[in-house]
Amino acid sequence: MSNTMRLYDLAGANELARFSPYCWRVRLALAHKQLPVETVAWRFTDKAAIAFSGQGKVPVLVDGDHCVVDSWVIAEYLEDNYPDRPSLFGSAVGRSLARFVNQWASEALHPAIARAIISDLAKILHPQDMNYFRTTREAAFGTTFENLATAQVANIEALQRVLQPLNSTLGQQAFLAGDTPSYADHVAFSAFQWARVSSPISLIPSNSSIATWRERMLDAYDGLARATPAA
Amino acid sequence: MSNTMRLYDLAGANELARFSPYCWRVRLALAHKQLPVETVAWRFTDKAAIAFSGQGKVPVLVDGDHCVVDSWVIAEYLEDNYPDRPSLFGSAVGRSLARFVNQWASEALHPAIARAIISDLAKILHPQDMNYFRTTREAAFGTTFENLATAQVANIEALQRVLQPLNSTLGQQAFLAGDTPSYADHVAFSAFQWARVSSPISLIPSNSSIATWRERMLDAYDGLARATPAA
Repeated sequence: MSNTMRLYDLAGANELARFSPYCWRVRLALAHKQLPVETVAWRFTDKAAIAFSGQGKVPVLVDGDHCVVDSWVIAEYLEDNYPDRPSLFGSAVGRSLARFVNQWASEALHPAIARAIISDLAKILHPQDMNYFRTTREAAFGTTFENLATAQVANIEALQRVLQPLNSTLGQQAFLAGDTPSYADHVAFSAFQWARVSSPISLIPSNSSIATWRERMLDAYDGLARATPAA
Repeated sequence: MSNTMRLYDLAGANELARFSPYCWRVRLALAHKQLPVETVAWRFTDKAAIAFSGQGKVPVLVDGDHCVVDSWVIAEYLEDNYPDRPSLFGSAVGRSLARFVNQWASEALHPAIARAIISDLAKILHPQDMNYFRTTREAAFGTTFENLATAQVANIEALQRVLQPLNSTLGQQAFLAGDTPSYADHVAFSAFQWARVSSPISLIPSNSSIATWRERMLDAYDGLARATPAA
């Protein structure tokens, strides 16, 4: 493995607007393992730029001769190839349970947040991505961005029910992983970072346990996530 | 601590119908730790029988001079007081992430399963509990058991979305905790054991990852859960 890794990282029209929750999982995991990385701004339609990876999505991590895709596969790659660095999972049981948090974030949390922010997110995209994004996402949601924007308040209300287990857990402990953050926190927080970079709306009450934890995560790793501007 | 612990355990009209998911969490945790227990059949309205515990709900675990209530508190009590027995959490991170699974099961999984099975569950209760149960649960759901029964097919359909992260995780590993079950599995499985003892309906496709895992959990600990008859 080489000195500095390279991460293809989704960006908006402003190349500082790095909004992908899956790419944030990787950036936080790299910071946790104290591994430096150079990010490359990438847009949805730049398929040619990552054709070498054999597929068309980011995150794509290049580590010397290794090319690794899929955020979960990357997390396991980092854990297994850099065992002398701080652990992302804490133990074998911790790794298995982090996978459940990973699936919950992707399959329950992301869809609920997307319905609340996607009409705002569409506005920060690079012009070359706008048609691709609208076509694929409106098909996935079965409705238009305009309809989702009209239902934004109701969608934020529905999100609160999805957030309940996260909020009650964080009422009992500082991080999902306990006293300090690890990969389960990277995964869940990345969904809120996605929202923060994409939309000015407030998703959660500022006095909630999630809001307090979100501030801790913005501060973690020398303020890595906070350094990216909010929408 | 004494020889055999005593667990007050929710039962139906048939005292073999032990249906409480919170009591099943404790029974599986005790089996995991290889700690014998005597269960005492208890009904919702037997408040006097557990008044010594200072509150009105089961599980109530009596271990010599100690009386412990609340399934999560009991799990931590067992882990901390019987550290030489097989671990329920695997590590500190494992304990923290098991709490998220615990909250997800209680706050997302249980309500979704309840809407599908509660009209059947109401029929297996002891007559002395029926009025109490209907009054408190219909208030909580904001609708009648008859309306929930009418919507049973739609409620089972809605449950599938809640189950998605559990199903996709169990498509990747044998148990939530990895190669062998531990407390996160006890918690999630107990919701399915609750359904199994309370209702004859099928909640999930028999070829799903959850169904395969459920069979493994029914076999675990010498078939402890399978020994309680299905409805």
